[in-house]
Parts: sequence; structure tokens; C-alpha cells
Amino acid sequence: MLNPVSSVKCFGGQQNQYMHRSTSLNCDMHFSVFLPPQAALEPVPLLYWLSGLTCTDQNFVTKAGAQAAATDLGIAIVCPDTSPRGEGVPDDAEYDFGMGAGFYLNAIQEPWSKHYQMADYVINELPTVIAQIPNLDTARASISGHSMGGHGALTLGLTHPECFRSVSAFAPIVSPTQCPWGQKAFAGYLGDDKKAWQAYDACLLMGKAKEHLPILVDQGRADTFLEEQLKTEMLVKASADAGYPIQVRMQDGYDHSYFFIATFIREHLQFHSRYLGL
Amino acid sequence: MLNPVSSVKCFGGQQNQYMHRSTSLNCDMHFSVFLPPQAALEPVPLLYWLSGLTCTDQNFVTKAGAQAAATDLGIAIVCPDTSPRGEGVPDDAEYDFGMGAGFYLNAIQEPWSKHYQMADYVINELPTVIAQIPNLDTARASISGHSMGGHGALTLGLTHPECFRSVSAFAPIVSPTQCPWGQKAFAGYLGDDKKAWQAYDACLLMGKAKEHLPILVDQGRADTFLEEQLKTEMLVKASADAGYPIQVRMQDGYDHSYFFIATFIREHLQFHSRYLGL
Repeated sequence: MLNPVSSVKCFGGQQNQYMHRSTSLNCDMHFSVFLPPQAALEPVPLLYWLSGLTCTDQNFVTKAGAQAAATDLGIAIVCPDTSPRGEGVPDDAEYDFGMGAGFYLNAIQEPWSKHYQMADYVINELPTVIAQIPNLDTARASISGHSMGGHGALTLGLTHPECFRSVSAFAPIVSPTQCPWGQKAFAGYLGDDKKAWQAYDACLLMGKAKEHLPILVDQGRADTFLEEQLKTEMLVKASADAGYPIQVRMQDGYDHSYFFIATFIREHLQFHSRYLGL
Repeated sequence: MLNPVSSVKCFGGQQNQYMHRSTSLNCDMHFSVFLPPQAALEPVPLLYWLSGLTCTDQNFVTKAGAQAAATDLGIAIVCPDTSPRGEGVPDDAEYDFGMGAGFYLNAIQEPWSKHYQMADYVINELPTVIAQIPNLDTARASISGHSMGGHGALTLGLTHPECFRSVSAFAPIVSPTQCPWGQKAFAGYLGDDKKAWQAYDACLLMGKAKEHLPILVDQGRADTFLEEQLKTEMLVKASADAGYPIQVRMQDGYDHSYFFIATFIREHLQFHSRYLGL
């Protein structure tokens, strides 16, 4: 059951929000979909957008300005929330763990494992749920995201290449096993056995990929998280070591904000459009 | 004295916020300026943007996506706050009066008159303050705004045509003397003598204009405030009665939100660029 929450006209299309009961997360979830005007006439492909720490499904919708390019190209954009939410869902007092910080993985530790199954949600449940929306061609999908969501886009793209045509990321956490944000979250959700961590680290996954998808990464050089948390150079090295070609662009002067995303989201949508049959 | 608060790169330009002590408002004020990349090389013209009820200088900056078109055209965007703020500034418990609801007029009633001088601030003080920013050509300026800010753009443009090359508005309050929002604010700031109200009503000012500026208005037909508060049809009639030609576009399906503004802001910037010497 998919419950419409709101629908607002934007760039000739509709910016919609929906609510549904998630079976993988065991809670009610909101997500947002931008339907470009082309969807009124014919099936359109889609981009999944995964947001970063503290975000909901709304940040990208209100701040990235992506609807302009999505309408120009005829691409829908599907934005899930960043974690399970609601009463009964365990949380943490800090911004970088618990609600708003699901890290797009399947938790195996108590008390997190009952709800924090975001990898399963994005890969298996959400595509089935949005298939109820008319003219959304879920067989043609790409994935992108920012920061923690860039980590999500890369790791889900690397482990499920059959689900996506192309992958991109803005300022991704490229190796959560090697940075404070990731180490805290993985210890909490996955436990101390670091073997389990390897399934969710883009740098470690590059060498295991069975299929190579087109990958584009943008990273601002003025991003204050670059050195300690994001470590883009590790992805460049892992890509070279694995023989997995990717495009990494270091952007002078740009920081970690949505102003950075807004600046380059059109180029990311153009990149994905080449692989989405447009 | 102009104090830089923040500066973030966006579409090749800089999205800046400043703080200063306002002599007309008797308080510290924040405002935002987007400087397109052209401003690094040569003087650029500017658009003043006046926001609506409850907004600060930040709403337009984060939600309208205007920086893309501003960079394409080489226009700076200057966003003042919507009212005086801070300790000692009188406020009201409701959203539509007091802080966040300055209505771009000069209050004459106690206790409002000491601080609520937004017309004076926008027309006289702000241009002097921003003149300290390099390569901002304050002699080439246009004005736009949304809702209460659309009212501000229209009334300030009609009463100070020497200050602006062109005027535009999204979903403006066209006749505050004839709608609940305006009547409440005007009674509070200006008192019961309705003669004083006439200086701030766009419909009443059209017939008194000494000079005709180019004016563009966009109004969504699905705007839930259209009938009771905005009353666009009154502006169309006043324009015809006054022989003051304006362009009013009724946009099917659009509501009062920033999704509406984001959709048409590029066309407004293109409109203003024709009169700003670009």
C-alpha cells in the first residue's frame, strides 16, 4: 500500500511524497519521487538518490534544484529516507549513528538489526513499492548520492550491478572501514568482527566486482571532511589497483554543501542519461 | 562596517552572507549576496530579492536554485532579511506580524516604529552597504520577490522607479489594504487611519506612478492563498485602469511554494537581464 502524502507541480512535473509500511525496516517510511512531465505520456527511467547524514527524503528535493535537469532529460528521481524512523526504532544521541544515519547496510547487531536494513530496503523493497507508480520504468535505474549516500550508491552499485545502469557520487565516504564516521557506524551495526565490514566498503569492493558499471565521482577540494572522513584518493588508488575504470573529478573551491551538489547535479543527470536509454 | 559571515562556492560564483549594524532598523542585520563568477572580473548588475512571510535571507538562497541562471546571465542577487530581528526588537506571537513579517514599509505606530523601517532599509541603507562589495554595480538594479516580498517589490518599484530598471513578482499580495494579511499588518504598523495605508498598496499606487517600469508577475492557479490573500485579478484591473502596462502570467497547477519559484526564476532573471544592460 502506497499512500500519497503530497504532490506539488515543479518544472512541469510533479514532486511527490509517499508513505508506506516497510516490511524490511519494520516501520512506516516516507520517500519522495520527482516525476518529470514525460511520465504523463510514457515510461521514464529513474535515478535513486541516497542522502547523507542527518538528512531525510526532503533535503535533496528542496535544495539540489535537480528537477530542472530531470525535466529536460526525462528522468524520474526517487529519494528514500536515510534510515528507519518512528517510535520503537532505536536511536542514538549523536548525528552520525541511528536515525538519519542508516549507512545503507543490513545491521546484524542488537538492537539495530530489526529495523536498520537499508541495503535490503533500497535494493529489494523500494523498487517493488515504486513499481506501483504509473510510468516509472524501474528496469532502467541508476543510483547516486552524497557523503554517506555516496557511500551507499557506490557500495550498492558495486554489489548489485544487475540493478543499476550507472553510478555516481558527490563527496562519498569511499572507505568507511578507514574513517571515524564509518568505524563508529559499522562497529554499532555490524559488531567488532571486521570481516563483516568488508561488504560495505567501496574501496574493498572494487577488486571483487564481477561487472564494471560506469562510475562518476565529484569531490570538492574545499570540503572540510575530505581529509579525515572522505579520503577520495583511496578510491582512485583502489580503482587503479582493481583495474575498474572510474571518473573522479576534484572540484576546486567547492565544499560539502548542497551548493556543491546543485552546481554539478545537471552533469550527473546527463551522465546517467547516456546509460538509461535516453 | 560589513562583516562577512560565510562564503560558499556555487555555480562558479560565491554565495555569501554578511552581517552589519543597521542604522535604519536599529539592530544587527544579516543579508545574502550571490556573486556570479563574472564579478571576479568586472562590475555586475544585481537583483534584489524580497522574501515572504516567515522567511529570512536564507530561504531563497537554499531553495530557489537561482544561482544557475544568475551565473549564466552574470547577475548578482541580493537577499535582505524580511524584518528587523534580535533582542529588543518587538515581536508578535503569530507568523504574519512582527519578526519575519516586516511588509517592506516604514512603521509609524509604537512600539514598531523604532525598528520596523524596512522600506527605508531596502531603498536607502542596503544599497549603500552593498556598495562596499567589489564589482557590485548598484546603479544597475532590479527587484523581485515572493508573496509579501512580491508586494514589497511592486510597491517599492512603483514608488521608487529611479532605483530599479525592472520589477517582477511571484504570487504577490497585490492589495494588502484588501486582504487579511495586509489589514492585520497595516493596522499594527501604520494604525487605523487608512490614508497611511495607501502608500503601500500596489493596486492603489499604479494610478499614481510617474514612470512606468517593465513589470512581470507570475501567479500559480493552484495557490491556496490566491483567492483570499493574493487577488491577482485586482492588479490586472488596476493596471488596465491606470494605463500602466504589466505582464501577468497565470500558471496552471502551480502552488505558493519554492517549487513554483524555482520553476520560473530563470525566466524572471532573463526578463530583468534585458533591462540591466546585459
